[in-house]
Amino acid sequence: MTARRKTKQIMVGDVAIGGDAPIAVQSMTNTDTRNVESTVAQIERLQKSGCEIIRVAVPDIDAAIAIRKIRDQIYIPLIADIHFDYRLAIASMENGAQAIRINPGNLGGKEKLAKVVAAAKQHRVPIRVGVNSGSLEKDLVKKYGHPTAEKPDAMVESALRNVALLEDLDFYETKISLKSSDSMTTVSAYRELAGKCDYPLHLGVTEAGGLIAGTVKSSVALGILLYEGIGDTFRISLTRDPVEEIRVGYELLRSLNIRQRGPELISCPTCGRCEINLFGIAEKVEQYIQDMETPLKVAVMGCVVNGPGEAREADIGVAGGKGVGILFKKGKMYKKVDEKELLSVFLKELEEMVEKKG
Amino acid sequence: MTARRKTKQIMVGDVAIGGDAPIAVQSMTNTDTRNVESTVAQIERLQKSGCEIIRVAVPDIDAAIAIRKIRDQIYIPLIADIHFDYRLAIASMENGAQAIRINPGNLGGKEKLAKVVAAAKQHRVPIRVGVNSGSLEKDLVKKYGHPTAEKPDAMVESALRNVALLEDLDFYETKISLKSSDSMTTVSAYRELAGKCDYPLHLGVTEAGGLIAGTVKSSVALGILLYEGIGDTFRISLTRDPVEEIRVGYELLRSLNIRQRGPELISCPTCGRCEINLFGIAEKVEQYIQDMETPLKVAVMGCVVNGPGEAREADIGVAGGKGVGILFKKGKMYKKVDEKELLSVFLKELEEMVEKKG
Repeated sequence: MTARRKTKQIMVGDVAIGGDAPIAVQSMTNTDTRNVESTVAQIERLQKSGCEIIRVAVPDIDAAIAIRKIRDQIYIPLIADIHFDYRLAIASMENGAQAIRINPGNLGGKEKLAKVVAAAKQHRVPIRVGVNSGSLEKDLVKKYGHPTAEKPDAMVESALRNVALLEDLDFYETKISLKSSDSMTTVSAYRELAGKCDYPLHLGVTEAGGLIAGTVKSSVALGILLYEGIGDTFRISLTRDPVEEIRVGYELLRSLNIRQRGPELISCPTCGRCEINLFGIAEKVEQYIQDMETPLKVAVMGCVVNGPGEAREADIGVAGGKGVGILFKKGKMYKKVDEKELLSVFLKELEEMVEKKG
Repeated sequence: MTARRKTKQIMVGDVAIGGDAPIAVQSMTNTDTRNVESTVAQIERLQKSGCEIIRVAVPDIDAAIAIRKIRDQIYIPLIADIHFDYRLAIASMENGAQAIRINPGNLGGKEKLAKVVAAAKQHRVPIRVGVNSGSLEKDLVKKYGHPTAEKPDAMVESALRNVALLEDLDFYETKISLKSSDSMTTVSAYRELAGKCDYPLHLGVTEAGGLIAGTVKSSVALGILLYEGIGDTFRISLTRDPVEEIRVGYELLRSLNIRQRGPELISCPTCGRCEINLFGIAEKVEQYIQDMETPLKVAVMGCVVNGPGEAREADIGVAGGKGVGILFKKGKMYKKVDEKELLSVFLKELEEMVEKKG
């Protein structure tokens, strides 16, 4: 794994982004932002699942005004997402948005951008320059062609151009995203940009799709980038309950050995050797550990022959025998339980271990 | 993306592995192999979903004998997975297994291994040397320590030692796997081995877990490796219906722009701007395209403002408005449909497009 890229650090509320800060996990609400109650309810569920920064769409002034009421009821920083209308960007900051996501080039000219930047300085709010492969400046697409994995130049140039607009206004509290719905274009664009500036980078694949396709596309693109030390915060984008985005996000960080949150389930796919209903047990254990925060390795293995050995790094595990299950800790068997009682006994032991670990 | 590693090519039945052959997608049954009916039924579902090679566990002689009846009813090559008992390896080949997966070092000594290799030569069957981090030779673990991302040496050395046992018997029709349940250890092990031999590599993360965790772990590890040109075939291991393993496998290859199978769904996560029930539509479109084989980009986007533009690479798409949907092709809108009829009209247009594309 490559050492993490050195970047400037910015603050989104009390969450540091870039430098040596932990890679922050974000999401975005899909409620009507003007509906404070449903938006807060969704953010509360996201906070509980580990979301560290939340973004809301601000399509009109009522949404910008709602930000104040939303912020009063949540404890993670809130980012306002604005397209085209500079007044919404200013209104969002006046109502307490701790960061804004804009495309500086599409706010209607330099004077309007200058007003937004003045407000950002006044409120000490950073800006994400959010480049999206589908909404690039026409001259860049003409010059470089539509961005591809081989030639992501139009995206990179768009980012640098938008960042320069901010720099011209003496503004440097910036992070950058470069999203494409194609994983390899996303990877190429970030890799190229990474060498051309030292701003922190917000990673993401846009319109990634449903739970499985979106999880694969995001895991591949962000996995490659983070493995190369590129990326300071990210959002997994899924056409699904945003809580799933957070869940996938932490699985991603765990798989890269970057951050741990909650127990990890090691479970075998079962094969012709398995003599127990392993899927049922694995699913119930998975549900059970979903809301736990203590890092722990939990194993559910189909057979006694290989199970405990193959899952020897597990803190606690269960392996199936013929009508029985064997409980093991760190590769050593220590209890035999009838299949009927297996789940309840195992969950009890698991809970005791979590309590001990605090 | 790095050019693909140069390897020797072997044949598993009529499927070439390594060299310039397509990266093959495998799975493993989780039925009782002795139950021919249920095993064949599962393999039929796997074949339909695009599985190109199937592996079955052979824990006893009845399972080995069942292989013949299974093979008579399926059209993809079958690999027999054997632990410890050299007689089962031989019986599997006698009954038509087109490859075997063994650990040459644990079959009970050189004489027994020689008999297995003689049978493999006779039946023209290749061997996968399947190293698993949980069942390494004790002397190697003692020498190198339990394998980690920083030091995967015990796994790599075990693979080379087992391969050498085959080479001593003049056997070279070999592929190698090096599986750990830790994604980063898996990556390190394959990277190191890749430079030390030219055998084709079978990739996989073992005991990867349930649908989401397992998909993330496998996508990250295999994504990094395939991006670096390493890997000739793979199995995504999930504690789930193996058909999901195939689905994730093709999503992985698609996200890396290596292979396309069936339509790709580009769908946005929705946000406060969305005025239509996008999740319902996206889910139904996703189900609908599940069994299609024609590569096609299909978009389901929440809003008309950015939707068609952001999904301009889509062959066909739908974007939500207020109570209506806009159909678009290649970024250009061409039809407005009432929300009630949206799904049926869109699916009909989609089907027509698939028919045209053949």
